[in-house]
Amino acid sequence: MQRTIYIISGPAGVGKSTTSKRLVERLDRSSYISGDDVSHIPVNGRGKPWLCKETHDLTWKNILSLIKNLISYNYDIVIDYVTFPSEARWLVKELKYSDVRIHYIILMVDKETIIHRDSLRAPSVQMGERSVVLLNEFNDELNDFNNVLDTQEFTADQVDLVVNEILNSNRFLIN
Amino acid sequence: MQRTIYIISGPAGVGKSTTSKRLVERLDRSSYISGDDVSHIPVNGRGKPWLCKETHDLTWKNILSLIKNLISYNYDIVIDYVTFPSEARWLVKELKYSDVRIHYIILMVDKETIIHRDSLRAPSVQMGERSVVLLNEFNDELNDFNNVLDTQEFTADQVDLVVNEILNSNRFLIN
Repeated sequence: MQRTIYIISGPAGVGKSTTSKRLVERLDRSSYISGDDVSHIPVNGRGKPWLCKETHDLTWKNILSLIKNLISYNYDIVIDYVTFPSEARWLVKELKYSDVRIHYIILMVDKETIIHRDSLRAPSVQMGERSVVLLNEFNDELNDFNNVLDTQEFTADQVDLVVNEILNSNRFLIN
Repeated sequence: MQRTIYIISGPAGVGKSTTSKRLVERLDRSSYISGDDVSHIPVNGRGKPWLCKETHDLTWKNILSLIKNLISYNYDIVIDYVTFPSEARWLVKELKYSDVRIHYIILMVDKETIIHRDSLRAPSVQMGERSVVLLNEFNDELNDFNNVLDTQEFTADQVDLVVNEILNSNRFLIN
């Protein structure tokens, strides 16, 4: 049976985790991969995935291995991770022989909202300038906006509306 | 370069996580796999790994995939999971062509200690009878005690002594 992968991406502070977890709940046979958790499996000796190519590549290989196993056990998959268009395209290529539909969703809010949300985090996990750098990196790499889902106007208790849009639209399909 | 895998096993309440995390810190190039975390990647549709063969098998396939990737990136690996001797042997078989040493350590305390430690957990995560069932399952499956490390006499601030024993002994080697 054909399975579905949802890549929930976007810069820090757009609501990836909240949206991903709600989406997982809405699917009958579902799994949840936190890219951050996978990137933290290496402990001593690893670099930051956005600075160290080796750590970055290992993280994506681990995610890909988990995806392949989960597909073979008939799970839909929600990936919660900062995933750039080039990385989403790499996944499509690696999974071209698998019977899956891949939806790639870039959640987006404006710069002021990202800075504000970052300031609300506990100081130890605040990203500071990095959160704006990430936002700019997304804007630089985007060729079109088919995959962007603007969540600026949604409040925290409207997550279900965002999930409905993800579930009911074909515009996020990339394979 | 030959890498090392440490499987830190034993029933609930013996100190697997504490010991594993300290061991990871002591290794130069190390990684940490929480079997519980891996078993929770499937969300809707999964069973309990100790009751549902399919969920059990998927968990171990995911762990094995992560191990293979981590070895190819030259990481030592600490696996923190309730791992029975038969499962450790399965890992040895699956990794027979990999250049790794596999140490299998079953941490053990007595029944009264396990019951006491379980009672100290938050009610929502207490295992109740299951913690004793697990202890009995280990005792039933054990043919010899080479892999058992009795931590009954160690206090919480003596974790480093346990880690020293793991690092300096060859008796846990199973391949």
